[in-house]
Amino acid sequence: MAKGITKRSVDYAKWYLDVIAAADLAEHSSVRGCMVIKPNGYALWENIQRQLDCMFKETGHENAYFPLFIPESYLKKEAQHVEGFSPELAIVTHGGGKKLEEPLVVRPTSETIIWSTYKKWIQSYRDLPLLINQWANVVRWEMRTRLFLRTTEFLWQEGHTAHATEKEAIDETLLILDVYRKFAEDYLAAPVFTGVKTAAERFAGAVDTYCIEAMMQDKRALQGGTSHFLGQNFAKAFDVQFQDENGDQKYVYATSWGVSTRLVGALIMTHSDDKGLVIPPRLAPIKVVIIPIWREESQVESIKQVVGDLTRDWNGRISYKVDDRDQYRPGYKFNEWEKRGVPLRVEIGPKDIEHNQVVLARRDNGEKTTVSQEGLLEHIETVLESMQHDLFERARSFRDANTFKEDNYQAFQKRIEDPGGFYWVHWCGDSSCEAAFQETSKATIRLIPTDGNKEQGSCIVCGKPSPTRVLVAKSY
Amino acid sequence: MAKGITKRSVDYAKWYLDVIAAADLAEHSSVRGCMVIKPNGYALWENIQRQLDCMFKETGHENAYFPLFIPESYLKKEAQHVEGFSPELAIVTHGGGKKLEEPLVVRPTSETIIWSTYKKWIQSYRDLPLLINQWANVVRWEMRTRLFLRTTEFLWQEGHTAHATEKEAIDETLLILDVYRKFAEDYLAAPVFTGVKTAAERFAGAVDTYCIEAMMQDKRALQGGTSHFLGQNFAKAFDVQFQDENGDQKYVYATSWGVSTRLVGALIMTHSDDKGLVIPPRLAPIKVVIIPIWREESQVESIKQVVGDLTRDWNGRISYKVDDRDQYRPGYKFNEWEKRGVPLRVEIGPKDIEHNQVVLARRDNGEKTTVSQEGLLEHIETVLESMQHDLFERARSFRDANTFKEDNYQAFQKRIEDPGGFYWVHWCGDSSCEAAFQETSKATIRLIPTDGNKEQGSCIVCGKPSPTRVLVAKSY
Repeated sequence: MAKGITKRSVDYAKWYLDVIAAADLAEHSSVRGCMVIKPNGYALWENIQRQLDCMFKETGHENAYFPLFIPESYLKKEAQHVEGFSPELAIVTHGGGKKLEEPLVVRPTSETIIWSTYKKWIQSYRDLPLLINQWANVVRWEMRTRLFLRTTEFLWQEGHTAHATEKEAIDETLLILDVYRKFAEDYLAAPVFTGVKTAAERFAGAVDTYCIEAMMQDKRALQGGTSHFLGQNFAKAFDVQFQDENGDQKYVYATSWGVSTRLVGALIMTHSDDKGLVIPPRLAPIKVVIIPIWREESQVESIKQVVGDLTRDWNGRISYKVDDRDQYRPGYKFNEWEKRGVPLRVEIGPKDIEHNQVVLARRDNGEKTTVSQEGLLEHIETVLESMQHDLFERARSFRDANTFKEDNYQAFQKRIEDPGGFYWVHWCGDSSCEAAFQETSKATIRLIPTDGNKEQGSCIVCGKPSPTRVLVAKSY
Repeated sequence: MAKGITKRSVDYAKWYLDVIAAADLAEHSSVRGCMVIKPNGYALWENIQRQLDCMFKETGHENAYFPLFIPESYLKKEAQHVEGFSPELAIVTHGGGKKLEEPLVVRPTSETIIWSTYKKWIQSYRDLPLLINQWANVVRWEMRTRLFLRTTEFLWQEGHTAHATEKEAIDETLLILDVYRKFAEDYLAAPVFTGVKTAAERFAGAVDTYCIEAMMQDKRALQGGTSHFLGQNFAKAFDVQFQDENGDQKYVYATSWGVSTRLVGALIMTHSDDKGLVIPPRLAPIKVVIIPIWREESQVESIKQVVGDLTRDWNGRISYKVDDRDQYRPGYKFNEWEKRGVPLRVEIGPKDIEHNQVVLARRDNGEKTTVSQEGLLEHIETVLESMQHDLFERARSFRDANTFKEDNYQAFQKRIEDPGGFYWVHWCGDSSCEAAFQETSKATIRLIPTDGNKEQGSCIVCGKPSPTRVLVAKSY
């Protein structure tokens, strides 16, 4: 355990904040609920952004940018939407020294400003589909905030698409859900369950909200991303109609979808340990740190020379850092880079030079191996890919070992407290039974599976018929 | 002249808006002064961002993110700063359904929130320099707005650095000024003059504001970026001191610097013509459009086959688009891609296939050449680099042909109206003489050169001694 980091077993919430501090990722600002994302934390977000942006573009989406401010009246056009977001709004009442005629809302999400714009853009079926994403900041006035997981201002992407048919819009919703799943699994190395939310957990204004749910190390669920099928709700609220191929006027179908800086919180909580941050190699801003080790001043030059030779053609191929600061001892440096989560450490000392070798130390499992200097970069790339794979498998094993079927409500109530975890339980579909999970155990239905793998049974609360098991857990 | 685009010679301001509409770059939103940046416009900003971000990182800067909101009291801590920005502020007075105890300002720039944070980060000389940039949206309540050039909300980057010595901070200010110059010249293909602003034009809170100034096609100046040496003003306002190597407590020296979506306006106005947008190849989201041409249905398949063969290994090497829509004729497509500013068009028809050739048409000068299909990509890359170079040289010739020395005030007053342009004139340094330019001709001193190339003379307004000529022009 590194100095200053509380053990997970002692206080998980404290551990989370300690890891953020130790890796210098973010801090609370003097503005209520808003965080400062420090360079180490922002670099993680940049890598998340870069990869997702690439995946959005590969699936035909373009980026655009819509205003930060939304006229208050726009929010009110979709009844459920305004009801859902009203309690969380920040309101601008004065601009340029004058009171505004109509207050402006700082966007909590952009459906209303975007659909008021799409009305101008969409006339004909030829204008469809419209596949747009934006990277932006949004503000939701949160009462209880936690770095990355829940902050008043956060950074995110929000996709907003328009389609001619219901089927196309649902296909888009599911396409993005799968992009999110792939990103979570292949980059965050976080296995996720996918499915649809209950009405109670649905996005305000959506017909259906699909989600990815991951398990954190304290066995709570974290919703990593949501993809909403909005039906014609916003098209009707903003009167967005198009002329179809037969000349008929029809309302457009919509989707919206987003992930946020919350994913940085998910990354931290999925992989990190009592020594500090652990970053999946594919998202690591620095993948390798090289630490030259010398006992005598006379050895410094030759070691630096070898390190220079070894890394000569690395630029542009791998992001690495050579830590040759002479005011710190190797042990101090090891600890510092471990806290920061750099996946691989390369140690090289006089003996290694003599034997044309280096020592590799993996951040995830502490494994140390001695390897030849020949073909070092290729070897490192192989090890990093193994780490990426191993982190995913470790997280999956952990999740699977803590995911249970449960058919007895009393047993469920006990087990959700201890040992905790994910529970597949039967649910009749009734909102009062759903509320029972929340009331007695502060757990919620995280999702209803949509993979067609249905098993009929009896509701764990009331005993009425249940068409399928649903996933219940405590969550962030 | 393309349909729907006013000629520059008829109405330059209208032409500018017509080009934006024709290339589908942006539009006014329903929120006062805020614009919607459409996908074509945002793609330009993304390319600007990507290149600048790379240049900032190469010079040792890291990205971070600070809150959108700033407590009103922070703004007031630096006297000149609050005086400069007060009239332009948007104020949040309510959050989460309640009136806030202290109103929050939507950041017009982030010096105050950042320096209140740096106070926590800086204790010792070892914490310096601190070299941080953020990509963000900012809000300044503008009375008269124009797409990209002046909008209430805009996107920008703002660098905020902290240094132990005055010299280091000034060096940083000038380093960034040179990054901006290089970016403008090598990517925007816009030649710029660099220098320092007069006290009247200085950033509110700065000791010195350096700038790059480009000439638009109507011969007005456009300030493309500013780099501020802030001295110890913000360090004193927020009490940011560090312990130097001798153990003495000292105030930190600061810089800040920024460019914004205004650069998209500069790009449009520097190069575009009466047919529409012209984009320098290095910043073009799509560099090449390929238009297969057929007369008979029977030719379609073989042409598409050849286009497929030609572009087989282009992915990842060049961004291109094949426009094989069959509902439009080639002339329509030519016009459409010209309006959008794609640098190079490749035409390929049955005759070209027969002769193993294609036709290249340059967007900048309309030049058409027939070239072999062998080595086409390499040839295209060469042509694009020539275009990049030619656009810069054309802009420089235009600027130089419209930049004059003038020593007679009456002649200056006439000539600044017609023919317009940039005027190097002698100025005594007195603010009343500076005001005279503004009052009689609405021109301003754009910069005082700092390149050491000084020529003494007599102030063009009052006749008193002048240490150097300054650049005067009407501006955006």
